Amino acid sequence: MSDLLEKAQLVHATTTDLASASTAQKNEALRLISEELRNQKEFIMEENNRDIEKGRSNGLHESLIDRLVLNEQRIEEMADAMLQLVELADPVGAILEEWSRPNGLNIQKMRVPIGVVGMIYEARPNVTVDAASLCLKTGNAVLLRGSSSAIYSNIALVNVIHDALRQSALPNDAVQLVEDTSRATASEMFKLNKYLHVLIPRGGKKLIDTVVANASVPVLETGAGNCHLFIDETAQKDMAIEIAINAKTQRPSVCNSIETILVDRNWADKYMTDLVTSLQQADVEIHGDRFTQQAADHVIAVTDEDYGTEYLDKIVAIKVVDKLDEAIEHINHYGTSHSESIISEDEEHVVTFMNQVDAAAVYHNSSTRFTDGFEFGFGAEIGISTQKLHARGPMGLEALTSTKYLLHGTGQIK
Amino acid sequence: MSDLLEKAQLVHATTTDLASASTAQKNEALRLISEELRNQKEFIMEENNRDIEKGRSNGLHESLIDRLVLNEQRIEEMADAMLQLVELADPVGAILEEWSRPNGLNIQKMRVPIGVVGMIYEARPNVTVDAASLCLKTGNAVLLRGSSSAIYSNIALVNVIHDALRQSALPNDAVQLVEDTSRATASEMFKLNKYLHVLIPRGGKKLIDTVVANASVPVLETGAGNCHLFIDETAQKDMAIEIAINAKTQRPSVCNSIETILVDRNWADKYMTDLVTSLQQADVEIHGDRFTQQAADHVIAVTDEDYGTEYLDKIVAIKVVDKLDEAIEHINHYGTSHSESIISEDEEHVVTFMNQVDAAAVYHNSSTRFTDGFEFGFGAEIGISTQKLHARGPMGLEALTSTKYLLHGTGQIK
Repeated sequence: MSDLLEKAQLVHATTTDLASASTAQKNEALRLISEELRNQKEFIMEENNRDIEKGRSNGLHESLIDRLVLNEQRIEEMADAMLQLVELADPVGAILEEWSRPNGLNIQKMRVPIGVVGMIYEARPNVTVDAASLCLKTGNAVLLRGSSSAIYSNIALVNVIHDALRQSALPNDAVQLVEDTSRATASEMFKLNKYLHVLIPRGGKKLIDTVVANASVPVLETGAGNCHLFIDETAQKDMAIEIAINAKTQRPSVCNSIETILVDRNWADKYMTDLVTSLQQADVEIHGDRFTQQAADHVIAVTDEDYGTEYLDKIVAIKVVDKLDEAIEHINHYGTSHSESIISEDEEHVVTFMNQVDAAAVYHNSSTRFTDGFEFGFGAEIGISTQKLHARGPMGLEALTSTKYLLHGTGQIK
Repeated sequence: MSDLLEKAQLVHATTTDLASASTAQKNEALRLISEELRNQKEFIMEENNRDIEKGRSNGLHESLIDRLVLNEQRIEEMADAMLQLVELADPVGAILEEWSRPNGLNIQKMRVPIGVVGMIYEARPNVTVDAASLCLKTGNAVLLRGSSSAIYSNIALVNVIHDALRQSALPNDAVQLVEDTSRATASEMFKLNKYLHVLIPRGGKKLIDTVVANASVPVLETGAGNCHLFIDETAQKDMAIEIAINAKTQRPSVCNSIETILVDRNWADKYMTDLVTSLQQADVEIHGDRFTQQAADHVIAVTDEDYGTEYLDKIVAIKVVDKLDEAIEHINHYGTSHSESIISEDEEHVVTFMNQVDAAAVYHNSSTRFTDGFEFGFGAEIGISTQKLHARGPMGLEALTSTKYLLHGTGQIK
């Protein structure tokens, strides 16, 4: 029988206590988790090894095995991350607004935990510790559901967390792992509105799409990034080329890397050959329109499908556009509302682009690679939201909070 | 064939223009709608009459017929509401936060429209105008899906809105009504993530539950209110009784009325008889526990089911509790996280209650009847959210907005 319902009830029952935990108590729990991670390094690596052996015998690709591995260094990194989290301000309890009504009623809007977070994630076992610690820091309980390929590691890590919580003032049951990793149980978790206040899927597009399509529990969607760079007529040549190379090649596998470069025709007339050859020198494969193909050798003809593709690789599509409006239309049509950038010295174009492009982060004269909770200065990151509700763009600790109105009266009736 | 997809594409195509509309342009559109409503009063009433006749011949109850009616007064009220909306501040475009990073990147968080709002609602045709105007004020496009019982009225009202929009700077297609009111089309609308950014159901619990259970588009859930009044040991007698009567009887059919009164045993020892007889004099039927039954005549024995029931009528459950913790536990178990109140002179109890009760609005020494966008001073109300994400409690115009990060650089690369 699935342990889902039992675990969901256990975590749900801790929310009142968690919501009243002090910042000091939550930080102490994080410090204890950090300590226990270091103390129980050997145990964690042993259990992790069972997952690795199982993965190897199942013929798992070495790159996936690598994601599974918890070695000494990675465990130390997890333990360090706990201590960094301690240093961050606790968002819970802050009074965000306060006003009084003509009838004398005083209204305060206070930041509070969400309640129970359901986390659904793929192989990397470090997400277990990461998710649990972000939730505890913000006074949330968390129900974890990792993948079967990391099950021994996940069980071990949650045991370590429980060993730490038992020494803390926080309720031990605040972190629970669903050990039944069947699909049926996952589907049941999608509909557990009674006990879960939000679901956060972390992993590939398929996982996220499945959760969004099937969950009745509200989802914090972190999605794909089909990001664009628009090089306007007035763009400085060196800046544009340098940013194009950085945004494409610095880490092609991540969501805030660019996939298509749109180039104003007048800029292209002068510099397209330089742009393409510079990208090629940086090992980038070019899929270009007719203009781009004429400007340089070894350019593959771009298709409509290219424009909708998140390559996550050293490949980029290039298209010449006649004016700003065409660039904005292309981006709003093919983009995923993640990160978009304009390189331009024309203030009016910049304002229009930034207002009309519909994305979580819109850049001017900058690489798109900064869409990230740490780069934004949040000190933590839950993910990058590509939806419009609750939180949009890089999500720090505040994204794990809700609000509550406190109203003080002196006998007010209506 | 359903007109859903075509209409959804039409509204979606207006979002870029709407997002750049100025406050003056949006207000002018609202003024024009107000004018056209008054100009076309006769036409609206004629079309409304078709719905009423259809309703009567279908044997619709007179109370439901009354909800359908658009008479001269109600149309004037709608027209006035447009002008009140003009007076409210436009939340869109505000810079909520701004900071700079060590690398010189300047980050602004700006308030923007959500995009396309899908509104699913029951009989009252005034919701058509209400929803459309709230969306336009906040730069959102809206796809409306009303009920078949009000279809002629809804078509007429959207025609009137289109007549107004044609004279305005806003795109005419920004407001569209799905005329196919079949269930299959509604179900299709629940899954239209490509064109809709949020669904807002307005109506009864069944409608809301259906949308929440089946939608993959994010939902702004406005829900039921099983609200409580807790009378603490130190509560002032007259204040407690007056608030109990007000919170129960001033308008029993609404979500922020109370359904259960929890009474501290020591207070009950002294005043329970007065409380019960006062409520009975105000025509309230009492379902009470043993203590309550002993305190007065005509008290029906309360059941566990009572505690979970939103009566929406002049009925109240009364239960004696031994201490504050028992009251909080009862509320967090049976409540719907809507509005909860404590009557007390004990500051420590008040703080504990307000922190530990999990609800959108927690009151001290006040009736719960103030959980409402107008009573909060928002000047408008989309509904009262009982979910934890995006917005919680009464939702004003800001609940119809999202945010966007604008990042200005000087060539930053990572």
